[in-house]
Formats: sequence, C-alpha cells, structure tokens
Amino acid sequence: MSGNSFGKIFRITTFGESHGNSIGVVIDGCPSNLDIDLDFIKKELNRRKPGQSEITTSRKEDDEIEILSGIFNGKTIGTPISIIVKNKDFREKDYYHIYDKFRPSHADYTYYSKYGIRDYRGGGRASARETIARVIAGAIAKIILRKYNISVIAYVSQIGDIALEKNYKELDLNNIESNIVRCPDNETATKMIELIKNIKKEGDSIGGIITCVVFNVPVGLGEPVFDKLNADLAKAIFSINAVKGFEIGSGFNSVYMKGSEHNDIFYNDNNIIKTKTNYSGGIQGGISNGEDIYFRVAFKPVATILKEQNSIDIKGNEVIIEGKGRHDPCVLPRAVPIVEAMTALVIVDHILRNKSSKI
Amino acid sequence: MSGNSFGKIFRITTFGESHGNSIGVVIDGCPSNLDIDLDFIKKELNRRKPGQSEITTSRKEDDEIEILSGIFNGKTIGTPISIIVKNKDFREKDYYHIYDKFRPSHADYTYYSKYGIRDYRGGGRASARETIARVIAGAIAKIILRKYNISVIAYVSQIGDIALEKNYKELDLNNIESNIVRCPDNETATKMIELIKNIKKEGDSIGGIITCVVFNVPVGLGEPVFDKLNADLAKAIFSINAVKGFEIGSGFNSVYMKGSEHNDIFYNDNNIIKTKTNYSGGIQGGISNGEDIYFRVAFKPVATILKEQNSIDIKGNEVIIEGKGRHDPCVLPRAVPIVEAMTALVIVDHILRNKSSKI
Amino acid sequence: MSGNSFGKIFRITTFGESHGNSIGVVIDGCPSNLDIDLDFIKKELNRRKPGQSEITTSRKEDDEIEILSGIFNGKTIGTPISIIVKNKDFREKDYYHIYDKFRPSHADYTYYSKYGIRDYRGGGRASARETIARVIAGAIAKIILRKYNISVIAYVSQIGDIALEKNYKELDLNNIESNIVRCPDNETATKMIELIKNIKKEGDSIGGIITCVVFNVPVGLGEPVFDKLNADLAKAIFSINAVKGFEIGSGFNSVYMKGSEHNDIFYNDNNIIKTKTNYSGGIQGGISNGEDIYFRVAFKPVATILKEQNSIDIKGNEVIIEGKGRHDPCVLPRAVPIVEAMTALVIVDHILRNKSSKI
Amino acid sequence: MSGNSFGKIFRITTFGESHGNSIGVVIDGCPSNLDIDLDFIKKELNRRKPGQSEITTSRKEDDEIEILSGIFNGKTIGTPISIIVKNKDFREKDYYHIYDKFRPSHADYTYYSKYGIRDYRGGGRASARETIARVIAGAIAKIILRKYNISVIAYVSQIGDIALEKNYKELDLNNIESNIVRCPDNETATKMIELIKNIKKEGDSIGGIITCVVFNVPVGLGEPVFDKLNADLAKAIFSINAVKGFEIGSGFNSVYMKGSEHNDIFYNDNNIIKTKTNYSGGIQGGISNGEDIYFRVAFKPVATILKEQNSIDIKGNEVIIEGKGRHDPCVLPRAVPIVEAMTALVIVDHILRNKSSKI
Repeated sequence: MSGNSFGKIFRITTFGESHGNSIGVVIDGCPSNLDIDLDFIKKELNRRKPGQSEITTSRKEDDEIEILSGIFNGKTIGTPISIIVKNKDFREKDYYHIYDKFRPSHADYTYYSKYGIRDYRGGGRASARETIARVIAGAIAKIILRKYNISVIAYVSQIGDIALEKNYKELDLNNIESNIVRCPDNETATKMIELIKNIKKEGDSIGGIITCVVFNVPVGLGEPVFDKLNADLAKAIFSINAVKGFEIGSGFNSVYMKGSEHNDIFYNDNNIIKTKTNYSGGIQGGISNGEDIYFRVAFKPVATILKEQNSIDIKGNEVIIEGKGRHDPCVLPRAVPIVEAMTALVIVDHILRNKSSKI
Repeated sequence: MSGNSFGKIFRITTFGESHGNSIGVVIDGCPSNLDIDLDFIKKELNRRKPGQSEITTSRKEDDEIEILSGIFNGKTIGTPISIIVKNKDFREKDYYHIYDKFRPSHADYTYYSKYGIRDYRGGGRASARETIARVIAGAIAKIILRKYNISVIAYVSQIGDIALEKNYKELDLNNIESNIVRCPDNETATKMIELIKNIKKEGDSIGGIITCVVFNVPVGLGEPVFDKLNADLAKAIFSINAVKGFEIGSGFNSVYMKGSEHNDIFYNDNNIIKTKTNYSGGIQGGISNGEDIYFRVAFKPVATILKEQNSIDIKGNEVIIEGKGRHDPCVLPRAVPIVEAMTALVIVDHILRNKSSKI
Repeated sequence: MSGNSFGKIFRITTFGESHGNSIGVVIDGCPSNLDIDLDFIKKELNRRKPGQSEITTSRKEDDEIEILSGIFNGKTIGTPISIIVKNKDFREKDYYHIYDKFRPSHADYTYYSKYGIRDYRGGGRASARETIARVIAGAIAKIILRKYNISVIAYVSQIGDIALEKNYKELDLNNIESNIVRCPDNETATKMIELIKNIKKEGDSIGGIITCVVFNVPVGLGEPVFDKLNADLAKAIFSINAVKGFEIGSGFNSVYMKGSEHNDIFYNDNNIIKTKTNYSGGIQGGISNGEDIYFRVAFKPVATILKEQNSIDIKGNEVIIEGKGRHDPCVLPRAVPIVEAMTALVIVDHILRNKSSKI
Repeated sequence: MSGNSFGKIFRITTFGESHGNSIGVVIDGCPSNLDIDLDFIKKELNRRKPGQSEITTSRKEDDEIEILSGIFNGKTIGTPISIIVKNKDFREKDYYHIYDKFRPSHADYTYYSKYGIRDYRGGGRASARETIARVIAGAIAKIILRKYNISVIAYVSQIGDIALEKNYKELDLNNIESNIVRCPDNETATKMIELIKNIKKEGDSIGGIITCVVFNVPVGLGEPVFDKLNADLAKAIFSINAVKGFEIGSGFNSVYMKGSEHNDIFYNDNNIIKTKTNYSGGIQGGISNGEDIYFRVAFKPVATILKEQNSIDIKGNEVIIEGKGRHDPCVLPRAVPIVEAMTALVIVDHILRNKSSKI
C-alpha cells in the first residue's frame, strides 16, 4: 500500500520522477469557488526553484505550471485539481556514471531493494524535485488560509554552527526574503551565506535548522488521539527529504524544565483566553489553543557532494562514486517554502476536518 | 473527521475516557493464526501501569484485560480483535475541584473549545490512561515482530539534566528493566531516581528523553513519499502525550556536520550490504536500509503538579487551581513501553504494507 | 487489509463473533453535544432481535447494550463511542455437529479458506448477529438525521411470489410496524405471513424484497465520481448478509424505457426546484437532488434450513449436514431495521462530508 | 471530503472535466516490475471511444495517451503511475445554449447546487468522458490479472426489450467483439442494432443490461464485513454513470426461491472444492469461493436526447432545452469495457488486500 497521498479531506496525491515526463499533483477536496491566483503559485515555486542564487545549485529548472483540471475561469469548481510541471532541463547523461552504483546516504539502494528495479535518473522519485508538487498544493492551501487570516512563515535559523540567537518574536519576519539564505537577521544571514559559499568551494554540503511559525490559528484544530495537530505536523515535516529532527514549542529544551516552570498559565485578555508563556507551542492535548504554533526542523547536509566516495554497485562490488554534476551545498534556503507548504496543507486539512466536530 | 485510528493495514482504533466505563482497542487487520500470549500482554501493561514504583503516581489501576472478540482458542481468527480494560480505581470526586476550571498546559481548555462540552473527569479522553489501549495493541504487534526476529527496545536516556553519556551500542540493554527508572546504566539510573524523588517531594514534575532502537528491520519498509518510515514513526511518537521533540539517527546534531562526514558509506559484508556509519538511523529515502533504526524522544514535564496555579474557569474568571491528588512526577519510566508500542505498530503495519510492493 | 469499518467521517468499526464474548461497535466521528436516547436504540434493536414473533427464529437473544465510552451524562462528547452487547443465549453445542463441516451457501468454507482457521460457532463473524452493531450505530445516525428532519423508512414489499402492488406513495407507511412481517399493506402482509409459516413448517426458507425510502434529503449529498450517493448506498446494502440485488429509482425497469420517457422534467414549485417524475430515485450524477431517494433490495432465502443436505467436511470428505437447531424461515422482517441502519449511516456520513464542498 | 479515488491498495484517483485540458488518472500502489503493454491500453480505450460505429455518437475523440510518471523503459517502478489523455475535439459552443440551463436527468442541477458554480461545458466532471481514466487504469489491472489467469468478460445481454435468452455458459464469449453492439449472440445482436438505429432516428435513447463474468478467481478474496467482494463490486459498478441496478448470482430471481433450491451444494472434484449450482455467484459471506463471479447491470436510457424538453434555468425560470448536438442513443456497447475496468480494479485491489490475511 503506497504512500503518495497526504491529508484526509484536503487530500493531495503527488506523482512524477525527477527525470520522467512531469512532476504533478492532484488535489482532491479543495472547496469550490476559490479564486486561484496563478502568479502566487508561480511566486512560491520560484522560492523553491534551483538556480535562484549563487548559494544554490546552478541547475536551471524552468518550472512552468500547466493546469490539467479543476479550475474553470480562474475558480475552483469542486472537482480534483491537477497541475503539472514538465521536466525539461534534465541531462540524463549526468547520471550514467551512477546507473548501477548506489550513492551513499541517497535512496538508491533502498528503492532498488524495495522495488527490485532501478530508476537511476537523478534520484527518480526520491529526488527533492518531487517537492514542486507540494509547493503548488501548498500555495493553494495558503490561498485558503488567507480567508482565515492565518499565515505560515518559515525562515532559516541555523546553518552549520551559525545560529540565530533571537526567537521569532524578536525578529522582523518581513526581512526573510531580503537575502538569499532566507534568514530574517541580515547580520547572521551574511555569515550563513559566507559559510555556504565556503562549503560549496570545498565541494561539500552542510545542514541547518528552519524555524516555522503559524500565526492566528483558531482554537480547536487537531483530532485526538492519533491525528493530533502536532502529530500531523511532525509527519508532514518528516516526509520532507533530509529532515532528521522536529521539535515543537519548548521541544528538546523542555527536558530540563520543571512542570511549575513549563506550564503555560491561562489568563483572560478582554474575553480572549490566552497563555502567559507558550511552551506548548500553540497546541495542547493535540488541539490548537489559539497561541502561535512554532516549531524547528533539523536538516542534515545533503548527500550529493563533489568529492569521491567509496560505495558499492548493484552487484555488491566495491566502487568509487565520482563527485561531479551540479548540486546544492545547502538545501535550507530552498526548503523554506517546502516547510511552509507542508505546514499549510496540515492546517487547511484540519480546518476542514474540524467542521464536523460539533452538531 | 476524527482521529482515533492508527495504521493502514494493521489498523487500531482506541476508545475510552479515563473515568468512563472502559479503555479499549479494536485491531483490524491482524493476520489470522497468530498465537496470542495473554501473559505477555499483561506483562507489557504492568510496565505501563501506575503505582508500579515509588517514583510513579501512587494511583493504583488494576488493569485486567477482557477479550471481546477476534481470538478463539488462543489464536487470532482474522476478525477484528477487541480488548478492553474496565476502569475501576477512579475517584471521580478527586476532580470535582476542577470541574469548571481549565488546568494549565492540560487539554481541558482545547477539548472544551473544540467539542463545546466538558468531560472534567481526570482528563477524559486526553488522559494518558488511553495509552493502555496502545500498549495492548503494541504487545500484539510485538508478537508478530517476533516472527521476523525484530525487536523494539526503548529506555530512559535523560531525566532533567542527568543524561546517559553512552549510546545504545555501548550499553547493556538487558539492564533496562533492572531499575525503576528504566535506564540501562545503573549508575545514571540511581541519579535519575534521586532527582525524581526530589522533584516528587517538591510536588513538581520533570521532563526527559527516551531513546528507542529497532533491531533487525528488513530492508524495504516505508512508503514514499509521504508515508516514509521516519514520517510514520514521527507521527506515531508525536501522538503520545507530552512529547515535544523527535529526532532520528544523527538528528539535530546533523546540523553541524558536512556531507562528507555525514554520508554513510556502503560496503559489502559477506554479501550483506551494510554502512560503515549509521547517521541515517537505518532509513534512507524513507525506506529502511537494514541498519538499526534509532531515535530520541523529548518529553516535557507533565502538567499535573501539586502546587497552586493561577488559571481561568469555563466562564473566563480567574481562579486558583489547587494542587492535590496523585500524580506522576516524571512520566518517562512508564512511557518506555508506550514508545515501544507505537514503534512496533508502525513496523508491523509497514511489513504488511510492503507485501504488495513488487509483482 | 481488513474491512470492518464503514464510513469516512461518521465512521463505524464493528467487532465480535456470534458466539464470542460480545458484539460491538466503535463510532468515530460522531459530533459532540448530541443527546443520545438509549430507549430509541433499544427499540431499534428490538425490531432486529430474534424471537420477536412466530415467523422468526425462536432463538432468544436478550440484547442489553453497554456503553463503554463516548457518552457522558447522556450526551456525546466528541470522543469515540463504543457500545457492546454481550452474547448470552448461545448454545455452543448446537454447532458441534458442524464443527468440521461446511454448510452449503454459508460462509464456512470461504472463511476457512481465507483465514486458515475454523470458528465453527454458529457462523462466527459471518453471522447476521453482527448486524446488532450496525443497528446500534444506525440508531445514533437516525438521531442525527432527526435534526435535519430526514427520515429513513423501509418495509417488506415482497416475500416469495407475494408482492405489494402499490408503490411507497400509495401506502400508509405508518402501518409498517402494525404486523409482524413489516409490510404496510395489511392484506398483503397476511398472505406473506401465511407463506412464511408454511415455509417454516417445511423446514425451508424463502427470499423477498425490502423497499426503502429516504424522505427530505437535502440537495447536494454525494461525492463524485466514485463516492456517488447511490454507489455508497449500493455498497452499504450489499454489505448486508443475503443481499443479491439492489436497484434505485427506476432500477431494472429503466431498461425498457426511452430517454424521452425516463427523463425527470424540472419545474419550479414556489422557488423550490422539483422534478415531475422521479425515475432518478432522488440522485443525479451521484448527488441528491432533493426528491425522495427510494430503492429495492433483493434478499435470497437464508441458507440455514431444517433439511438434510449433502456437503463436504474440512478434509474434503462428502458428508451429510443434519437439519437441526433454530432458524429464521425468512430474514426479511428482521432485515428491515438493518436496511434502515445502513442507509442512515450513509446519509449521515455524506451530510458531514458535504460540509467542506464549498469555501 | 471528495470522492475521486477508488481502491485501497491498488488505488486510483481520476481527474479532468470533459472540456477541460485533460482527463487523467494516478494509480498509486501498482506493484513494480510489471510490463506495461501500451497497445493493450489503447485497444481498451478504442472499445470505449465514441464514434467507433454507427450506433454510437458521431463525436470523435482521438484519445492519445501520455504517460507522465511511474513507467520507465516499459516497466512499472513502484512509483505512482500517471497517464492522461488531452481533450481535443471539444466544441465548447455546442454547449452555449445550455450554459445557464439545467438539462433533465443530467447532473447540471445537482453539481451547481452542491458546488455553487457552473461548469456548463458538456457535463464537465459528470461527463462519461471521465471513464477514459477508468479504462486506462482497468487495462493495467487486467495486465496484473493475467498473471493470475483471471479474466473479466462483459457483454450486452439486453437492449430495451430485446434480451439474450441464454446465460453466459451457453454462449461463445469469443463472439463479443464480432459485432458493434457487443452481444455474443449474433442473431440477438442484429435485433439490438436495429432497435438502436431506430431509437437514434427518433432522436431518443434506450437502456439495457450488461452481464459480466469473472473467471478463475481464487478462493479468499473479499474483506468482511463491509468490504465484502460483492459490496465492493456493487459500489464500483454503481459509480458508473447511468447505472440503476445491480444483481449478483441469482439476483432478484432469488426472491422466488426456497433455501432448499437455492443452496449451492459443495462437492469434491479431484480435491478441488466446487459447488453443483452457483446461485451464490461465486461469493459466499462476502468472500470468493472459486466459482465464476457473474452479475448483471441495468443502465437507464441516457439523458441526452435530440428532442425539445421543458426545464428550468439557473434562476428558476422555465425554459426549453433544444435537442441538438451529437449523442449516444445507447451507451451499452461503449459501457462494456467500463464495466470490465471497474471489475478488474476491484479484483486486483482485493488480491493485494488478501496478501495480509494470514500470518
């Protein structure tokens, strides 16, 4: 039983391999009568696309979207929305040197073992190019969230050992898109960019952390006991390539705290229930409590590097993988819109799911 | 659309409130002809039950299981298995003092907001007592895993600031059940127990970390791109009460590493493909690669403390929550079997899901 | 992947074998704050129960319901509702004579082949006793339907060759419960009862047809293209034991008609859109159009008869199945509440599903 | 919660409106390493396509398939398969005359009411053109069924009042494709064709019955109690446009039979368990028993006719719908491959589902 769908009511199914015909998505369950702003979808895709700056891969992908169904005269009509991006700038021969070799820490070996067949073309389905489909669907989810004044904002908060000291409340989140690393603090951003450039020169890669905040979430989203809002967010984020850790609210720091310190005290602020602190990260008992939802995501250094590495081939022989081609020294800047997309998908799905909680 | 089911093929649905008639589970999709060892189920429940030691709550719950369906002459027959535990030692009056008050960092407020009705009886559905159902189902999952020689082993690796220095390979995991805190290193365990006792005396609570390892997982489990094995594990773990963080393999430490350091190099060990390091944590591209799966889970300090706290009531009035009743100063020791149970459920479900990957 | 759940948002999971501990149901997705009228549930169960009249089996089942979860102070609280009925009047020894034999046209052989294990106790899971769970859940669904003024009414319209000539509009449906065969026309009912008594004397069984009507369905229920309202009704009804045929609106008679005769002409009746005829049976394009939904269900004669029959045993030997025990000569009267229950479940589920069709 | 997906493990999602960009399907869960015979898919599509003979619509649709994903070098690779057919020969202006009118017995009114928006282009999503996607997926399902030597064969057994007298065992099913109405008895076929031609001249339409047989189904398919094989077939078939009735095995005729006549007696035929009769239609207790599965499907006369009809418009005004355009006087011949496709999808899904029934 395969796993290419996500969401229950606002349900997406993605398809496509990095070097096949197309990458695409079907969204089933998008409410009708929604105005679809194509420019916004393109803008989101541009935040994800390779070749957007000197710290990303130089590979160019001209991601033109084609709407196959579900939108008529600019509006959703209640039928499944299918949108694709044709694959163009693929250089299949870039991958001939690894057609029978398993690249370290890639999915080559596990896919081959699971399916008994090798799609050696640049990672195939395991390629991060699949996230085009997520960003498209996430853009539509964000269009729905606008109706609720909910915003999902992510940014890079750490690259290697260069970490933002301030939390999201102390930062000007309007600054995120003002630099190519998508860190809202320009001073820190400059250091991060420098680090990535050095890593790129070495032909190596580096990891980091993305922080994401969801503002203005209504109280009541999340479906205990398994589809807790935090559980669905964790799954959504962990379905993104290269993610190794996820923490919400106080996260791993909560370990050091006592209950008397960690408990978020309720108070009445002009008939709105609020909490004085927000260690819970906006979710209690798996259900949103109206406070900001915020979480942090750890990304490992990407596996593709421009250095020679030992490995094995499909027959188990020891081989050397040459370091060539184009690659991202650090995926974090391009992963920002992907984290936002997955988050938006979860929130929209839970808004729709919550419609039947009361009689 | 509610969320009380988990798993796709091996699918459990749990039900019951902490002070209602029963806590129970229905398991649909358990293969037939499996010998069910009731003593093993009881043993697992005993690891979870309150009152098991001086560092857990003194509340006694005599968790007797009753099999309602699905098992005939000690074997599964392919029909849904339903097992319940009747609630007995509930003292409804213990909760009268909070029947109209929202306890800080509990689910009282969010449940009330979502459903428009208050079940004030000790957390109701949000109570960790619901995990009885998970441990029962997890025990049956473990019985299936035995057929594949897969074992799931969790232990407490940190309480407050007392952390195990050694990783799971350096420890004797047979020691876990030898002390009441379920830490395999007795020296560290002693410190942890002392810390918890002190916290208990203060009427406070403390968080910690559980490490979990899955040994002998076959290559090929996990369903890209959304139902990656790590994504389903993340969701499973985050569906447990009080979890604030999850990291797999190198986790948050991966952030500091370069690709050339982090990549796990393949080699051929007598025709078995292995990796020299295992920063991937046994999963690549969302699919198990045959190495050990290991992850760490951060638990916050539990919200119930024996101190007075400010809060609000159902009408928005500011009130004081008295600190009384029985509580766990630290949930970690009792959470060990719960983490194992959720992990076992994920692995079994993916074993069954993987049966149709190839023709 | 097992199939013991039904519905997407209002989702039921049933469990229990006819001679196991209990028959039960978990309802996940029932909105909160619903008043649950236990007497109504019992009344519905009494319509289903054996031994209710001289034309049903003389087997007595005292179906006492026990609420395990989900209801507090008479109201739903948004958590899963679990209700069971303990099995009492089972005479396991009634089935010893067939413990290794496959009864003709029963599920003995197929269950044994599928699961590799024999639960010979009276049909086990395949027994119609499982429908207790459906009637309980259906009663709760009907309580929801009352809020929408929707009513689901079924009746026996044919037994053997004795058929009601009139359609549902020509009958007084208040008469249905006035006779033991549940046919609203007393004259026809008398003939049906006589026929069934004769069949019972012969130790044989007989089939028949149930007609079901749903009044006051709002426009818009049904989810194209696969979860059409008629498709989900067809599945719901065909999941009932002994059903061999289902037709909606004009049904098999439509075959003889021309489009110009069959098309239902729209007209405006004081700003309500209606159709002059209703061959569509209230559903067009898979979506309800506001007209009455009506359909007919064919039930085969039940397989249990009091005559000797040839068959085979578990080893493939030819054997004789003795005709003994208690049985229903005709299931139709008791199937009326089951047809209504399954129908109510479908309608409620689609009401909840339809909540997210528009923005 | 929308309904554009079908199947649990072999799961298809279809998309596309009749006059949008494309009609397409995503198949998730197709096993890897399957050889995909494109010519076979095209051949199946040709059996469905309009304009194939003088008794179908003269509308031409040149259905060229385009593979977007999931197939590499002619083989499935375990990733989702997406295939589309671009819409070409649409004449949007053919539909201007009804852009604000509701055609009788079409889905115009119900879609508009449900979604609050009008896609007037030839039925939009409700058009039978959507079944292109089903036939493509069904062709792939049939390729899998070949591995099990299972065949699914449907034919036209009645048009209006012209009915085949013989049952499927008395017919030469190799004859089905030898005439344009797809009836295996040439004499009856001739009469059917004549009837349809006359109906076409009148500008009217006519209904009929399709019989479908599945040969060589293994014992054990079907998942009680709700996903019985017959229940899933009923749903699959009722999801096809214009279906009004479905009966399996003895169907509505069973009503007239006694249990002693209807019971299928088991016997041992060289260590294969068989039944002497097959009134059960190959399914007992919802599980296949190894006998042929056969069922009959009633189709109403299609709603599009070339006659003037009264109706209403979007504002509720009474209007006249002109009879113009191209249409099918009878859908039965083209529906044969659609019935087969839906049946094949159900069988394949249940083969995969059955893989985890035993340990």
